[in-house]
Amino acid sequence: MQFIGNHILSVDQFERGDIEQIFSVADKMEHYALRRRVTRVLEGAILGNMFFEPSTRTRVSFGCAFNLLGGEVRETTGFKVSAISKGESLYDTARVLSGYSDVICMRHPVPGSVAEFAAASRVPVINGGDGANEHPSQALLDLYTILKEMRHKGRELDGFRISMIGDLKYGRTVHSLTKLLALYKNITVTLVSPKELQLPEEYVERLRSVGHEVVVSSDLSLGIGHVDIVYSTRIQEERFASKEEADIYRGKFRLNQAIYTKYCEPNTVIMHPLPRDSRSEANELDNDLNQNPNLAIFRQADNGVLVRMALFAMILGVVDQVDTCSRGVNWYHRRDV
Amino acid sequence: MQFIGNHILSVDQFERGDIEQIFSVADKMEHYALRRRVTRVLEGAILGNMFFEPSTRTRVSFGCAFNLLGGEVRETTGFKVSAISKGESLYDTARVLSGYSDVICMRHPVPGSVAEFAAASRVPVINGGDGANEHPSQALLDLYTILKEMRHKGRELDGFRISMIGDLKYGRTVHSLTKLLALYKNITVTLVSPKELQLPEEYVERLRSVGHEVVVSSDLSLGIGHVDIVYSTRIQEERFASKEEADIYRGKFRLNQAIYTKYCEPNTVIMHPLPRDSRSEANELDNDLNQNPNLAIFRQADNGVLVRMALFAMILGVVDQVDTCSRGVNWYHRRDV
Amino acid sequence: MQFIGNHILSVDQFERGDIEQIFSVADKMEHYALRRRVTRVLEGAILGNMFFEPSTRTRVSFGCAFNLLGGEVRETTGFKVSAISKGESLYDTARVLSGYSDVICMRHPVPGSVAEFAAASRVPVINGGDGANEHPSQALLDLYTILKEMRHKGRELDGFRISMIGDLKYGRTVHSLTKLLALYKNITVTLVSPKELQLPEEYVERLRSVGHEVVVSSDLSLGIGHVDIVYSTRIQEERFASKEEADIYRGKFRLNQAIYTKYCEPNTVIMHPLPRDSRSEANELDNDLNQNPNLAIFRQADNGVLVRMALFAMILGVVDQVDTCSRGVNWYHRRDV
Repeated sequence: MQFIGNHILSVDQFERGDIEQIFSVADKMEHYALRRRVTRVLEGAILGNMFFEPSTRTRVSFGCAFNLLGGEVRETTGFKVSAISKGESLYDTARVLSGYSDVICMRHPVPGSVAEFAAASRVPVINGGDGANEHPSQALLDLYTILKEMRHKGRELDGFRISMIGDLKYGRTVHSLTKLLALYKNITVTLVSPKELQLPEEYVERLRSVGHEVVVSSDLSLGIGHVDIVYSTRIQEERFASKEEADIYRGKFRLNQAIYTKYCEPNTVIMHPLPRDSRSEANELDNDLNQNPNLAIFRQADNGVLVRMALFAMILGVVDQVDTCSRGVNWYHRRDV
Repeated sequence: MQFIGNHILSVDQFERGDIEQIFSVADKMEHYALRRRVTRVLEGAILGNMFFEPSTRTRVSFGCAFNLLGGEVRETTGFKVSAISKGESLYDTARVLSGYSDVICMRHPVPGSVAEFAAASRVPVINGGDGANEHPSQALLDLYTILKEMRHKGRELDGFRISMIGDLKYGRTVHSLTKLLALYKNITVTLVSPKELQLPEEYVERLRSVGHEVVVSSDLSLGIGHVDIVYSTRIQEERFASKEEADIYRGKFRLNQAIYTKYCEPNTVIMHPLPRDSRSEANELDNDLNQNPNLAIFRQADNGVLVRMALFAMILGVVDQVDTCSRGVNWYHRRDV
Repeated sequence: MQFIGNHILSVDQFERGDIEQIFSVADKMEHYALRRRVTRVLEGAILGNMFFEPSTRTRVSFGCAFNLLGGEVRETTGFKVSAISKGESLYDTARVLSGYSDVICMRHPVPGSVAEFAAASRVPVINGGDGANEHPSQALLDLYTILKEMRHKGRELDGFRISMIGDLKYGRTVHSLTKLLALYKNITVTLVSPKELQLPEEYVERLRSVGHEVVVSSDLSLGIGHVDIVYSTRIQEERFASKEEADIYRGKFRLNQAIYTKYCEPNTVIMHPLPRDSRSEANELDNDLNQNPNLAIFRQADNGVLVRMALFAMILGVVDQVDTCSRGVNWYHRRDV
């Protein structure tokens, strides 16, 4: 695809070459995100960061990515306080707000709303999540994390093995990641979920249609045994038909250090889209995994900044200028951990 | 008036020469707002953007205007979360907050509150709307839009014809615009509203006292027939004494393409202070006008940025430095539409 | 203590030499806060301003301090809207958010939470208030104000006399200031409060253990008679066991100009941590003191910016570069009052 001046609305826009281009630019951004250098390439540019639904992580990640490139951020949060609640159409909101900035990032609870907004916008729009529909930068950062973790082991994306665990039916991040995996070759995908929350058939089909091996299971111990990546997601109790149904699966999709040691191959990488529920009744990743060097969930978040910096630089056409507008860092900068 | 270092609280501050000065500076800002050049004239300056009442449009417009001049924006939104709710006086709030920035923009629900705040402030304050009282930058951008639309036709502000439609009794923007119109010559003002929502006599008098022709009507089709500008506003049902009263007027002040074609002169310009209610039951401007090139409502919003940039530059005394602190734009910039 | 790269969590971290170092840097910041010069020393750096509890004053003060040094600010406010409400641990929040900025300022309602957050953060964290526990920058700005007010009279911190008035039992600012006073010599501290709201014994002991004279009183007129500084705080009615108890003290800790003239020595300085309740039923400082040149409460707020600039510059190791990265101010700058 052509990046300069265009919207990023869905992972369906990308071909494999596009992904590789984004990741190649993201690699170059690491210097700046880790504060080894500062770039001012977008000094004077303005991001309109429009979050019509709560989000700390994604909102701040986009905002910081733009700041790291030297640009300014004007932010709007909340839904009720906006003119939208007075009956303003997305068309009007888009026509007005796109006159205020050079690029817009938007989250909105209604599926399709960001695309509708983008159609009326006079500047490029990045979808920061539109309800259950799409969240393309999350899928990109997930895949980018897999790439980096595999590369760290001298491996490639082609031929790797992943296990996706939890709510595969409603999980937006899982769906989008699945679409991206279909752009690569010879991947083994193990799907571990309660029967009620299995991955919808269309996504399974897509994986199989490109020749990937898909294994469906409802047993965590079997599902995590022979993979390179475990991608865990949250299971919300209210997704089940009844409390009894939920109780059957209680604790069965929860990963902790003991289970990891018993069933996983050495150095299996653990991912999670975050936020992770760390309360004792949660069904995700236990805190005793925090010291496990293969827990990649915070590297995932860091990678989000790199991917978003890359998207901004590509959309605004400044990739070639990032380094030439850079200088050394003159303040104490953080540890690289 | 003297702009440098002073507050902008009311349209009553302005004489015709002041207005012309503001618009002349606003004209020069268009290059920067359209991203043909970047200026960093206010690099290092801080705007305190204090919105003690919800507003996306005005708040972001002020913030972006300041960013476009190179300055930083520190923002406060919401009322309950502020110290004001703990009994802090506007005097105290002003003394403290004015120590944090170089200029303040403030919106507050209570009429007169911004002036009270400004009296205690140590930096210039711009009124971003104080309840039903004043919203001077909105009146300025409305008049600036009229000027530009007329100029586009080789006309001037003197001698033009405008029809104001809707709730003329409570509409803050209509009142302020009326005051500004009284600074010009030979204008014909047609006032179209339900009897309950007619323009208060003091504003009618002001217009007539300077020799303007004022026509009062409650019939939309007659009122929009021979004017250069139609300025539409919302009618809120709760303004009427009863539901029955409201029903009498239902739909009678609504403008759509068919009515426009039937009754308006060619190229009659349509304005609206926004936000526009686009729901089917609304009584304002129908969406089928969106492709009409004479619909100026989004140009109005764009002009708001120019007028606010002008006010900041004039108050902070940097008008002559804007161009000298400028450079070319190095990123993809948006279409000019 | 070592400042570069470290957290600021508690006043207990500081020795007298540390305080003097901070105040010496704060002195140098005044030029920039008063807009006599602009510095861009932190251009490109990002502050994560995380306020999980409402605060206008402290939040904007930290944000402006960072802007005044040339850095950018990404802000998060509110608690419910954050991932924390979905069960995310402070550990996870800290790991993620510390990947987004160069330094973090955090306020959180739970005592100890900021220290827990800091332990997991990859960048330095400044405690902006953790419930009833600590608010170190407030204590520093209070002491800095005392120093400047005394210096103005040719005096030093050693040997000065202060009266603290109001809710000394629950007042976080009073407790922290008391700890700092213990680092100086020969101070007379008069504690004026209702019996129910007396300063906890541990703080009294600390003062006495370093040789300070401590006088306890419940009579305002006696307590303010022979001091250099009157530090007033709010008494909240709900702190008393009963309404009757509260009524006994009603109005007895309220300072106004008449009481000041009658009982205070000439030029006794009046301080207050702000916000001040200015409603007629309030029990703090009356508005008729506003013209009294010894009312230092707004100088206190101004000093907060200087102290926070100093902390940022010291933590990020740029103290020596502040002046070399500076230039003249090219816009109208505010009165110094």
